[in-house]
Amino acid sequence: MTSIDDLAREVGVSTATVSRALRGLPRVSAATRSRVEEAAVRLGYVPSASASGLATGRTRTVAVVVPFVTRWFFGTVVHGAEQVLRERGYDLLLYNLAGDPAARHRVFGTGLLTKRADAVLVLGLTPTPDEVLLLHRGGRPVGLVGASVEGWPSVRIDDRAAARSAVQHLLDLGHRRIGYVGGLGESPVDSAVPTSRRDGYRATLADAGLEADPALEVDGMFTMTGGLAAGRHLLASPSRPTAVFAASDEMAIGVLRAAREAGLAVPGDLSVIGIDDHEAAPFFDLSTVRQQVDEQGRTAARQVLARLGEAPADGPAEVPTEVVLPTELVLRATTAPPARRRTPQRSE
Amino acid sequence: MTSIDDLAREVGVSTATVSRALRGLPRVSAATRSRVEEAAVRLGYVPSASASGLATGRTRTVAVVVPFVTRWFFGTVVHGAEQVLRERGYDLLLYNLAGDPAARHRVFGTGLLTKRADAVLVLGLTPTPDEVLLLHRGGRPVGLVGASVEGWPSVRIDDRAAARSAVQHLLDLGHRRIGYVGGLGESPVDSAVPTSRRDGYRATLADAGLEADPALEVDGMFTMTGGLAAGRHLLASPSRPTAVFAASDEMAIGVLRAAREAGLAVPGDLSVIGIDDHEAAPFFDLSTVRQQVDEQGRTAARQVLARLGEAPADGPAEVPTEVVLPTELVLRATTAPPARRRTPQRSE
Repeated sequence: MTSIDDLAREVGVSTATVSRALRGLPRVSAATRSRVEEAAVRLGYVPSASASGLATGRTRTVAVVVPFVTRWFFGTVVHGAEQVLRERGYDLLLYNLAGDPAARHRVFGTGLLTKRADAVLVLGLTPTPDEVLLLHRGGRPVGLVGASVEGWPSVRIDDRAAARSAVQHLLDLGHRRIGYVGGLGESPVDSAVPTSRRDGYRATLADAGLEADPALEVDGMFTMTGGLAAGRHLLASPSRPTAVFAASDEMAIGVLRAAREAGLAVPGDLSVIGIDDHEAAPFFDLSTVRQQVDEQGRTAARQVLARLGEAPADGPAEVPTEVVLPTELVLRATTAPPARRRTPQRSE
Repeated sequence: MTSIDDLAREVGVSTATVSRALRGLPRVSAATRSRVEEAAVRLGYVPSASASGLATGRTRTVAVVVPFVTRWFFGTVVHGAEQVLRERGYDLLLYNLAGDPAARHRVFGTGLLTKRADAVLVLGLTPTPDEVLLLHRGGRPVGLVGASVEGWPSVRIDDRAAARSAVQHLLDLGHRRIGYVGGLGESPVDSAVPTSRRDGYRATLADAGLEADPALEVDGMFTMTGGLAAGRHLLASPSRPTAVFAASDEMAIGVLRAAREAGLAVPGDLSVIGIDDHEAAPFFDLSTVRQQVDEQGRTAARQVLARLGEAPADGPAEVPTEVVLPTELVLRATTAPPARRRTPQRSE
């Protein structure tokens, strides 16, 4: 069997260079990488990383649990995490729950995660006390995105503040009847995120002296289709809102569609704002609160790798346990003063 | 250490039921699942599936190589594959290349895939002859989505026919100057799909006696942003097309945006049609050619599981080696006869 030394000798470079070339790490020229690659194929070289993993008890694998891989947010977080993991020679085991409680039981309830991976990343879910216990018993580092558990690494945005900046923008424009489309009640995404955004919405209205109207809060399931249904419901009301804050851009896109169906001009008759800065948001001219989604995945991966004692390949040497990434109001063309009681346009 | 027998005795059900409950399989009542789950946590039961995998040489893992997990198409294929794999107790190792040639080298060039997984699924990439050799040497079943290699399971659509139906629809409406936005030249998605769709476009024009105009073919990189740039380029031309066929809905959405920027009405001044039936397509009223994306992932997973000798949990007992899934023309509101030389609307 060809060893890494044979390969290095064949190509005439150091074993470290061979290792870097095959792992896709930087500081290897394209020409060298290509020669190493060619020789590896020719000599039938297979690296022993996974075999040595058995000896050390390390799998060089990180398990990532994601509620819905088809959603832009989670796909982008996975992408960010995978980039950092791959740079360090780790593989990513994907557990896509797809809103199925049985899948959640299987993934968390069987010790699977901690047996098959050196660390676990949980995205967009708050583990139940039982799940925390099981993960803890597994003895592997666990990182969270969009949730927090005492003592565990986590990365998230300030969801209340993000909601607040969206709703405050609508208030500043002169809106007083502001609808909310979120994930309430039986949302398949079982996390604090929807609740925090709704609380931010309610608190901002309260601070402006406005009473929350339960009829203005509708569940949009964090999907475009759910946002469409929620928008239809809100806009069919005789006392319809003049503005809608959706807790995600996907739901906001659904509301835009509902407005068009109802013959309402956006932003003339209805203002709409979301959260995310989804890749499609500029194509709808959607005003939104931007979050750094890819960076949430990158940071979470760095956090658990630091717990595994992996020296950082790039990025900050110190990785804080709790990271709260900033958000930013992005104003496009779906928000404006209400038509009926028009207030002077603010100069900016 | 608690065994599955201990657990079954504790709950008062068969070991088969315990196993089904913990794996999230059907035909277990919610109450039983909940009792099994509770007892597993209480007794600290950890299933030995992965440990026994070491003995049999089986990892019960399928590696999935994906060009861009952030793209709707690939995220949806992964979702479909993961559903079927999970039903059979298999895990999914995700390799997201993200357009990085070094990542591709590492993933295919090192025997990694076949050492760490029982089977490999490759999405949206045509393996090079070297990669085919390496995968073959690994001795694991390999399934392809959107590509084919002699003797290997594959699932795809007929890309030429899908392009043909879109272009024929534009021709039937009376369009003669039809632009094409695809992935040409240095597309990071190295597969036959972009080429086949472009060939379908050219062949359909040729059959209608129209000469292909290279100025009408623009690279849109299979992204919304790329489609926007391509659309701007096409629409800035003094002899701009009256219709655009984009080889994906994401690119078509970009073209719609370019039309709006140019002050062109859709479909009055410009018709636009894509391929996919992306989740956002109805929200843009986009006419398109629908493909069954989730089903491509499900079928590919069934194909490699069949090669692993796994009896199907559901679905057809026989899984053909080559599956070509049908596509369907979906007409919404972005296609109409050209404004200048209006032809009678066809009744349908």
